[in-house]
Amino acid sequence: MKKSIGILGGMGPMATADLFQKITALTAAERDRDHIRVYIDSNASIPDRTAAILEGGEDPIPAMTESLRKLELCGAGCVIMPCNTAHYFLPRLVERTELPFVNMIGAAAAACRVRFPGKTVGILATMGTLAAGLYQNALTAQGVPFLAPDEVEQDALMEVIYQGVKAGAPPSRYREAFLSVTEGMTGRGAECFLLACTELPLAARDLGLDLPAVDPTEELAKAAIRFCGYQVKGE
Amino acid sequence: MKKSIGILGGMGPMATADLFQKITALTAAERDRDHIRVYIDSNASIPDRTAAILEGGEDPIPAMTESLRKLELCGAGCVIMPCNTAHYFLPRLVERTELPFVNMIGAAAAACRVRFPGKTVGILATMGTLAAGLYQNALTAQGVPFLAPDEVEQDALMEVIYQGVKAGAPPSRYREAFLSVTEGMTGRGAECFLLACTELPLAARDLGLDLPAVDPTEELAKAAIRFCGYQVKGE
Repeated sequence: MKKSIGILGGMGPMATADLFQKITALTAAERDRDHIRVYIDSNASIPDRTAAILEGGEDPIPAMTESLRKLELCGAGCVIMPCNTAHYFLPRLVERTELPFVNMIGAAAAACRVRFPGKTVGILATMGTLAAGLYQNALTAQGVPFLAPDEVEQDALMEVIYQGVKAGAPPSRYREAFLSVTEGMTGRGAECFLLACTELPLAARDLGLDLPAVDPTEELAKAAIRFCGYQVKGE
Repeated sequence: MKKSIGILGGMGPMATADLFQKITALTAAERDRDHIRVYIDSNASIPDRTAAILEGGEDPIPAMTESLRKLELCGAGCVIMPCNTAHYFLPRLVERTELPFVNMIGAAAAACRVRFPGKTVGILATMGTLAAGLYQNALTAQGVPFLAPDEVEQDALMEVIYQGVKAGAPPSRYREAFLSVTEGMTGRGAECFLLACTELPLAARDLGLDLPAVDPTEELAKAAIRFCGYQVKGE
């Protein structure tokens, strides 16, 4: 039995559009009706996840739960979230709905092992995602060696995410910051990258970078397509 | 009071992703929470609109009405449809919901007058949209002269839409067909184009064409942003 997808989105909205676009592009389909039914609630007012984790900022759970209710009303068959940091709250969200989640962190960590066997992965993520250890734990479970940004690199990365992509700034505004991070981490041993904040695949694309990298949004799209009983294009 | 957007989508799914992406990119926003709340039901199983208009194909109204109910349940403040041909059914849909629609056809026809004053517009659309006279009527109301494809051009255009974009084919597969249409119509007096099927702005982008053209998806995005009480970037 084929399932539909519910996207608990808005974190951020451009990343949500990117996930939806990737689901569509990656589904093996010859015509419109071969595509998965997708429900989206893009609620950009969900409180910032990193601020909640690190600074005691407003709890995003009530707003996320409200979105879950709407996806349930629509009849979604599973839930996915185009925000890596939001996965910190997954254990609490799972208690609040009977809908199954397809987990972006697990899908992306597995892709690192498969696509870059034996390589050291540089984790590019928000401070919230890193502080919560989301990818450190998932990569450890996959036996994948990894490296996190140092303090200066992390500040530059947050600038790319918040003052760059989320602010709709032109790529020229954050090119230098992005490259300082990838070059610094390559110097310290990173052999490939995990673009572990959903704004970063957008930044890499808009900068025209051809990094050896895993895009968790793409891996989540593929995992969701398979979970719903559809076929990934080319598989 | 600011409103949210409901997208009655899936006609097709890639065009729906394109509309959502354009709404996000065209909203004046400094950070996530400046963005509009958007609900999407991407239901690619809605029966083909052109087939219903021209060949007595399955009526899409029941499936579209089901989607309207879901957008109402979510709490959408208005409805938009990323399918020009679907606007043929607008009078019947309006009777089935209290949600206001923002009309793509009207927004795109007005943009032709403003952006290309006095020019003859070549209407690139499905046979359903043309047979229903949707843009002929709207452009006449705006005092804009226009030209429709001839029979051979129309067949080539349907190939671009159905065997090209909707089938996920590479742009090389439909480049020649697309160019035969725009070149033929230019020869007959078209000075600019209305990309009046939501797959066509995608085709033009993927082909890297720089046509003098109005993109109804973009005009709908802007009209919806304004209708919801938000500001269009750069206005």
